[in-house]
Amino acid sequence: MGEGQPAAGKADTPGFAEALADAVARTERMLETLLPPATGDRGEAELAAAMRYAALGGGKRLRAFLTLEVAALFGETGGRSERRAERAAAAVECLHAYSLVHDDMPCMDNDDLRRGKPTVHKVWDEATAVLVGDALQTLAFAILANPATHPDGSVRARLVLRLSEAAGYAGMVGGQALDLAAESAAAAAGAPLTAGEVTRLQALKTGALIEFAAEAGAIVAGAAEADVDRVRAYAGALGEAFQIADDLLDITGTEAELGKRVGKDKGAGKATFVDILGLAGARARAAELVAEAAAQLAPYGARAARLGEAARFVVERRS
Amino acid sequence: MGEGQPAAGKADTPGFAEALADAVARTERMLETLLPPATGDRGEAELAAAMRYAALGGGKRLRAFLTLEVAALFGETGGRSERRAERAAAAVECLHAYSLVHDDMPCMDNDDLRRGKPTVHKVWDEATAVLVGDALQTLAFAILANPATHPDGSVRARLVLRLSEAAGYAGMVGGQALDLAAESAAAAAGAPLTAGEVTRLQALKTGALIEFAAEAGAIVAGAAEADVDRVRAYAGALGEAFQIADDLLDITGTEAELGKRVGKDKGAGKATFVDILGLAGARARAAELVAEAAAQLAPYGARAARLGEAARFVVERRS
Repeated sequence: MGEGQPAAGKADTPGFAEALADAVARTERMLETLLPPATGDRGEAELAAAMRYAALGGGKRLRAFLTLEVAALFGETGGRSERRAERAAAAVECLHAYSLVHDDMPCMDNDDLRRGKPTVHKVWDEATAVLVGDALQTLAFAILANPATHPDGSVRARLVLRLSEAAGYAGMVGGQALDLAAESAAAAAGAPLTAGEVTRLQALKTGALIEFAAEAGAIVAGAAEADVDRVRAYAGALGEAFQIADDLLDITGTEAELGKRVGKDKGAGKATFVDILGLAGARARAAELVAEAAAQLAPYGARAARLGEAARFVVERRS
Repeated sequence: MGEGQPAAGKADTPGFAEALADAVARTERMLETLLPPATGDRGEAELAAAMRYAALGGGKRLRAFLTLEVAALFGETGGRSERRAERAAAAVECLHAYSLVHDDMPCMDNDDLRRGKPTVHKVWDEATAVLVGDALQTLAFAILANPATHPDGSVRARLVLRLSEAAGYAGMVGGQALDLAAESAAAAAGAPLTAGEVTRLQALKTGALIEFAAEAGAIVAGAAEADVDRVRAYAGALGEAFQIADDLLDITGTEAELGKRVGKDKGAGKATFVDILGLAGARARAAELVAEAAAQLAPYGARAARLGEAARFVVERRS
């Protein structure tokens, strides 16, 4: 079976929970080798230690799971091919970890707790938090551009370009800027965001990177363009469902379950899907998105079962 | 004459000052088209305005000059080829601008003035400064990975990989971490840095990006590997000379000339080349480095005259 063809189904396919745990372990191992060792001159060793603290040993690794699972769907299994997908997954997780470190800073969302641990600026200081985020962003691009990620330079450049689009002004950073502006407007009793504005804000802030995570798996596996588009659409629906679930958990979850502060969105005057749609409306919209995600996967049948489960997982999770 | 061959000398070749002014104008025009327009929803427009403020209309553009001049040396002149070098130069300047915005933040070097203007966190706020730096770093990689920068994907991926090495943990960010650690050690009356440590710190913090600026020009022009190595060595010597001159200017310059605070290194307890070598020793070492840079250019004869002048310029400048 050639690269880029959907893999044949297996009778002993593991379930979603098992596959997610496997993605966590594989991503952790790959990140271990890609992050700098905490050695070197004073300053360097501390920076490396803080980068490792931020990127290792925490998080659901949902994005990494999407990269690995989509790559497997399109044939990237076994030996070197799996390593390519693992490298792409590690790059996505470095980018994600950088965004959390910067977003948690006092001048941004001012959070002391992340993934159940004190945030980087609490353990070290704000200067270290700035540098850790900066270096993790750089590392994400370094991983993708390295020939070990794919032998074809145009594939590597495509991964870099798409990640940069998902991460930058027209993606994640732009979404964070919209979010901060919405908070300021709320504090000044300005007009609240509309449903369309919240949807767009979240699509930029979290959706773009989740879409790239799935897309990267298809690209490293050499999937056809129609399949790349299809998994991107799947991940877009999943990403929006993920954010609605986040807004619901911020109201219904506990700090112990989530490993981060709860009720903070309300406190910060952030516009959430729950504010706009109500609790029942938000839950209904999340269910709709899960169905949309599943519809995108229909052509792949049972082989995409775990990706379908992933969409259900993001709305049913307790943390 | 094919790509990658040194260009033939011209009788009416402009001098260094003219070429530097030309690099400033071309880089400014290219950045104008690559930076996002200051439009869009609340938050986005402000972010774009702050990115433009940080990246446009200031700076010597020495790095951009190196990229453009080296590309011209190896034959990248005329039409589309020049645009490739301009895009690479713009990427380097975005990366440089990002580092200045983050380094100026209160938790880092705490500077209010940069390129004669109030710093981003003074005009906007710290959150905006974090996001502006983040988005400018992403943009640098987006520019290099775009097919408009070079038709060959492996060339684009190589540019991304080398910039990421120059910018990240093993380059600029690592150097900044060493610098902050050295300040803390000085504040705690720890051992001062040795000459070797200061040289290594500066090679990471500023040297690596200056080397990449020259290297990128050679890479987009399709220069032979030996030539890529040679211009990198040239730029390494120039970069060290540049930093020694910076340390000298911090003592002998004025704020009006420099457009930034002076005497700050001493105040911050930073180890400088002047501390270690003395004023006369630092001047002598800078002259030695200019000669080293010139030696690397010897094989190119008169065609590299402006690059030789650039090395002299960095040590003779008043700002």
